[in-house]
Amino acid sequence: MTDAIHFKIEGLAGYPLRQIEDPRGDVLHMLRSDNPYFTVFGEIYFSFINPGMVKAWKKHYKMTQRFAVPVGRIRLVVFDGRENSPSKGTLEIVEIGRPDQYHLVTIPPGVWYGFQGISRGPAMIANSPDIPHDPSESVRLPEHDPTIPYHWPPIKA
Amino acid sequence: MTDAIHFKIEGLAGYPLRQIEDPRGDVLHMLRSDNPYFTVFGEIYFSFINPGMVKAWKKHYKMTQRFAVPVGRIRLVVFDGRENSPSKGTLEIVEIGRPDQYHLVTIPPGVWYGFQGISRGPAMIANSPDIPHDPSESVRLPEHDPTIPYHWPPIKA
Repeated sequence: MTDAIHFKIEGLAGYPLRQIEDPRGDVLHMLRSDNPYFTVFGEIYFSFINPGMVKAWKKHYKMTQRFAVPVGRIRLVVFDGRENSPSKGTLEIVEIGRPDQYHLVTIPPGVWYGFQGISRGPAMIANSPDIPHDPSESVRLPEHDPTIPYHWPPIKA
Repeated sequence: MTDAIHFKIEGLAGYPLRQIEDPRGDVLHMLRSDNPYFTVFGEIYFSFINPGMVKAWKKHYKMTQRFAVPVGRIRLVVFDGRENSPSKGTLEIVEIGRPDQYHLVTIPPGVWYGFQGISRGPAMIANSPDIPHDPSESVRLPEHDPTIPYHWPPIKA
């Protein structure tokens, strides 16, 4: 087990994942019930993001997200607006994708996050949060909301 | 919830999954802890299979596999050699892939299974078995083993 990656935002963490090469098709790890950082299984689903496209902003009240990106590459942006957080006001930009950044990234509840597709083809996020999707426990802001200090750059598809 | 798909082999089942279209990138369901067919979370990992390539044969003693194919398309072949199975001797061929066959397919322990990539590009299987990978609870046979009545056809890449 490689060491965890620490970010500036409290509760945001990265865990390098194994990629097992095979000429027939590689095998990629994501999450096991005996991983030290596993908590509870809520769901597993996939979110595709086309080149240059943005899905932002979202905040969950209860849910921890667990992202891996087995296809393509994304830019994940996280903003900590939590009142009592030691990292309040911090913005973090994390690239996730193979082969050099194939990590499990956990996003704690209470922070704003969004992502953009930055690979030539579509990227696929696999997300395994700790509770199943429940629309009542999340809120959204528009992609260019001025209260979040980040501007999504245009990217040519 | 759409009805389950029944196969001839006892314990093999399919569950149609939701595909939510979005011009920025679609969202695809796989498995939730509150699905009636969910049991226990063991692991989630990804197995790619290149066009025409085969990964076969494997049998698990304890593990139930749960396959979804969010990228590309596979031919899954399952052979029931279980002594006390009502479907003993049955061979089943199942195609899985978007958009018309985007299903969760559960493979019970005790049967032989293998798969082949049949899409133009690589296919990706997401597998969420009910126990984490343990090499001591599975056995393998060569791809062309004569005890299994199936011949993997050559497919041009």
